[in-house]
Amino acid sequence: MQHIQQWGETLRLLVELAGTAAFALSGVLEGARKKLDAVGIFVVGFLAAFGGGTLRDLLLDQRPFFWVRHVEMLWGVMLICLLSMLFMRSQHIEVTQKTIAIPDALGLGLFAATGVDQALGANMPALVVVLMGVITGVFGGVLRDIVCNEIPTTFRDHQPYAVCAFVGGWAYLGVWELGAPGWLALLTCLLVTAGLRGLSLWRQWRLPVWLG
Amino acid sequence: MQHIQQWGETLRLLVELAGTAAFALSGVLEGARKKLDAVGIFVVGFLAAFGGGTLRDLLLDQRPFFWVRHVEMLWGVMLICLLSMLFMRSQHIEVTQKTIAIPDALGLGLFAATGVDQALGANMPALVVVLMGVITGVFGGVLRDIVCNEIPTTFRDHQPYAVCAFVGGWAYLGVWELGAPGWLALLTCLLVTAGLRGLSLWRQWRLPVWLG
Amino acid sequence: MQHIQQWGETLRLLVELAGTAAFALSGVLEGARKKLDAVGIFVVGFLAAFGGGTLRDLLLDQRPFFWVRHVEMLWGVMLICLLSMLFMRSQHIEVTQKTIAIPDALGLGLFAATGVDQALGANMPALVVVLMGVITGVFGGVLRDIVCNEIPTTFRDHQPYAVCAFVGGWAYLGVWELGAPGWLALLTCLLVTAGLRGLSLWRQWRLPVWLG
Repeated sequence: MQHIQQWGETLRLLVELAGTAAFALSGVLEGARKKLDAVGIFVVGFLAAFGGGTLRDLLLDQRPFFWVRHVEMLWGVMLICLLSMLFMRSQHIEVTQKTIAIPDALGLGLFAATGVDQALGANMPALVVVLMGVITGVFGGVLRDIVCNEIPTTFRDHQPYAVCAFVGGWAYLGVWELGAPGWLALLTCLLVTAGLRGLSLWRQWRLPVWLG
Repeated sequence: MQHIQQWGETLRLLVELAGTAAFALSGVLEGARKKLDAVGIFVVGFLAAFGGGTLRDLLLDQRPFFWVRHVEMLWGVMLICLLSMLFMRSQHIEVTQKTIAIPDALGLGLFAATGVDQALGANMPALVVVLMGVITGVFGGVLRDIVCNEIPTTFRDHQPYAVCAFVGGWAYLGVWELGAPGWLALLTCLLVTAGLRGLSLWRQWRLPVWLG
Repeated sequence: MQHIQQWGETLRLLVELAGTAAFALSGVLEGARKKLDAVGIFVVGFLAAFGGGTLRDLLLDQRPFFWVRHVEMLWGVMLICLLSMLFMRSQHIEVTQKTIAIPDALGLGLFAATGVDQALGANMPALVVVLMGVITGVFGGVLRDIVCNEIPTTFRDHQPYAVCAFVGGWAYLGVWELGAPGWLALLTCLLVTAGLRGLSLWRQWRLPVWLG
């Protein structure tokens, strides 16, 4: 058991890093598309990577923020922004949205799981717990799009994204209600969210059209 | 007295529900106009309904948030978003801004009153108290417009809106300074704010032009 | 020593007032360019003047906010907004970005210094301390631009702005590490930040181009 739990912790750390990196990268790409300058790239990268988790901590009143506890993540995202700028400058290669779809889906799942995790710890009611997971997973991208003066992609591309995190959050709660250990609930949430996101990209699922 | 106070509480609850519903509806309408997908509609509806009160609680450092204390409001707004989408799908009827003008004015007044109320309870100075009322009443709509990539309507349509809440806030303070009970001050703020808003719509009042 | 310290305090207060005024003015100008109504002008002026410091206090969990402790600053900014509207109405004079460049640079330096100052007092790690300085100096303008539905100028005009505050923040930390008194570190940060900003405007420095 101890062994599996440790494996869970390592998995969590690895995917959290991959997720943060993917979200930072998505910020850099969006910033590049909008022709921001170097400072703008850094800011949008930071917003995408840390926006969701910071909003989570702010709403749940949890201090210090996760990037104060793990300052190395700030340095890491800075490095990612710097390297991607150097790379884009030398290669003229366009990193497409497709390239980052997999780490982005993993990031969504992980961030959603941490949101649910912390909201549960703060004794929130079930719906708030799930919504906190959605907010954590989604709002980094939302802030990125707002600063880039766009309607957030998630709210208008008719692809399931926030919905995946919503389902994943309820999956977390379901497993947790059955008395399963924390790492298993977290893993379930991650797999359901990222899996649904992956499936919906692969099968080109669309949100139901509601406007006549 | 007890009787009147209870009547005040019931009034407050009723109008708070009507206000939240009206703001949620205004979010749905704005989202529909911007052709958001179903997820976007939910998010904009939630932002419009809960944005002002959440910012109030965040600035005044009051936890738990009001939607944590009353989770049923989250479910209610979810239902409103869902029903309006189904309705718009089946009816092809455009719900105009006019339709929601009355509940919106009531919502503005009520939210302003709760902002003033809570800021007073937190011993803020008078100007801050009034501004907190304005922020609570107005910022749901501001966040709605920002996410929809618009300059907030309130800041450019030359109609008195935030100003009504500003006057209503001072009215609350005035009545309260006279030693009146809380429900009376709250009712005054509500009536002054919503009344001014209604009057300004009816008489087509305009903010003074200041740009030469 | 006491004498110099007091001189430092007076300097700090004076420049803080000048900085707040300059930022408020920059908000009014941006709002006028976007043809906002009178209420919009007030809001954008307030956001520009108080946004950075409020975000700083929110992230560092410091209450009461500085504008609650110094309500006279709220009245002051209100007056500035009112007077500039009256002035613009009567004079048809366009106050250019150049006019406010000097107080704006001072404001950037001072706000950055207060951000570093408070983050140090909250025992944040070095990088967070410096970033908090940058956020305090820069985010008033960012919020101003977001409400006006623009990509924030700082992120796309290729002029060093946030970078000046970044360097100034490290300068503060360097001087402070040497055991210098607080006012000296604060003054260093102010001079380095505002100096770099002034130099970069004068010599027309540009951020390195990174997009091929």
